[in-house]
Amino acid sequence: MKQVTTIAELRAELTGQGAVGFVPTMGYLHEGHLSLMRRSRAADDVVVASIFVNPLQFAAGEDLDAYPRDLDRDTALATEAGVDLLFVPDVTEMYPRPVLTSVSVDELASVLEGATRPGHFTGVATVVAKLFSIVGPGRAYFGEKDFQQLQIVRRMASDLSLPVEVVGCPIVRESDGLAMSSRNVYLTAEERRAAPVLRRALTAGDYLVARGETSPAAIAAAMTHVVTDEPLAELDYAACVDPATLRPPDRVAPAMQLRLLVAARLGKPRLIDNIGASAPVSE
Amino acid sequence: MKQVTTIAELRAELTGQGAVGFVPTMGYLHEGHLSLMRRSRAADDVVVASIFVNPLQFAAGEDLDAYPRDLDRDTALATEAGVDLLFVPDVTEMYPRPVLTSVSVDELASVLEGATRPGHFTGVATVVAKLFSIVGPGRAYFGEKDFQQLQIVRRMASDLSLPVEVVGCPIVRESDGLAMSSRNVYLTAEERRAAPVLRRALTAGDYLVARGETSPAAIAAAMTHVVTDEPLAELDYAACVDPATLRPPDRVAPAMQLRLLVAARLGKPRLIDNIGASAPVSE
Repeated sequence: MKQVTTIAELRAELTGQGAVGFVPTMGYLHEGHLSLMRRSRAADDVVVASIFVNPLQFAAGEDLDAYPRDLDRDTALATEAGVDLLFVPDVTEMYPRPVLTSVSVDELASVLEGATRPGHFTGVATVVAKLFSIVGPGRAYFGEKDFQQLQIVRRMASDLSLPVEVVGCPIVRESDGLAMSSRNVYLTAEERRAAPVLRRALTAGDYLVARGETSPAAIAAAMTHVVTDEPLAELDYAACVDPATLRPPDRVAPAMQLRLLVAARLGKPRLIDNIGASAPVSE
Repeated sequence: MKQVTTIAELRAELTGQGAVGFVPTMGYLHEGHLSLMRRSRAADDVVVASIFVNPLQFAAGEDLDAYPRDLDRDTALATEAGVDLLFVPDVTEMYPRPVLTSVSVDELASVLEGATRPGHFTGVATVVAKLFSIVGPGRAYFGEKDFQQLQIVRRMASDLSLPVEVVGCPIVRESDGLAMSSRNVYLTAEERRAAPVLRRALTAGDYLVARGETSPAAIAAAMTHVVTDEPLAELDYAACVDPATLRPPDRVAPAMQLRLLVAARLGKPRLIDNIGASAPVSE
């Protein structure tokens, strides 16, 4: 694996290469990231990954400076996962002067995560558009863990006719169901034991959907109930939405595909999780 | 010259071709557009032009439906100018569903044209980003006539690391100094005779700059005076700005490069014009 830090080097390395697969990350890699890299390794000629903790997507007071970093470990893990080229720009390489340009998908960005993190998804869409320009991938891989981010990137790529296929990949979980996240490292031992409550809430919601519950509010209430029963967890939201609009449908119709999402703070770290759910074919 | 109407056809035609030059237009071609096409013909392997009257950049009440169109004439002119591939998508090809994604360069878009046309430059930046994605040009050519648009596209390309060189080309003028524009066709004979007042105002401003005037407000006032002296013209703005920020400098310093811009309505049509001006080296 080769590591490069500048846009010019990266472009030079990729000139005349075959189909490029791309896995953008903020580093501190875990099995979730590695699953994306392996997926690209199996499908693409050249596998490019990036590690860039993007200031644009952190608001003042968020954990930009405290975001965990371990480049040596990341380099070893990316090499093992089959990455050919690791792009690790610093902030001045990516943003040599103030970024006046923003890419937004407002209608998908104002709800769920966006409701408590204003500007977050504009920062995400802008850096992803820029990374796509730099890397020029045929396929780009994103985890379903950040489901709203995945849908926003998909919509951006479609609306702007970006010549890239955005591939969503399943969430990778710990053995007790906790979704893998770089932020899990912040959990105390006690919080870590409580953290699978997010997944349990989603399972409860999924059970109601499978049983034929037609009220998105009732499904969200059941998930809320599970999370609020855990004293260490402070719920942010629990939602049952149409995956395309990220809004609750008026009513769950037969065979409808839904996404259940939950966000909660466990001590300092804020965790998110989600699953797909399918309404039964006939009521 | 080949004409295509779909993104898929265009991409198929360009696969494996050499360096692509691109001239995006809204059609109703005049010498200004043709000068961009000829410039690309001289520099690039393949010359692509597009004709697309982009609804996103027109506000309600603007002249979207009345915007002049003449595809047969445009096709003949583009052929003569050396265009290889003319891309003429309809609105449903470009926007098959609502466009939720927007590309903005707010700081450059809120002044001058943007002050009276809210949303205009977001529509421009969004469609240009999309057309760049579709065509994948190495160079793209824009007239200096729409100077603010040129600076916004340049900044967008730079901020997002788009792999395209944005080439600004000189304004092409009628023999009496009027900048060529598709909207000139709306002028009555009397308005047409009065229209060179914009250029005369710019010349007056340039004269003051060359003489060592250091107050941007005084330079703007001189231009304003020329336009308001013409009874058929209704001034929108006259400005003396730093070309990078599109804001007036506090004071014109020696050797400073400036842009003088003016916008006025002549009857129904609204016309714009601009020139570069250089402050003398020593005061």
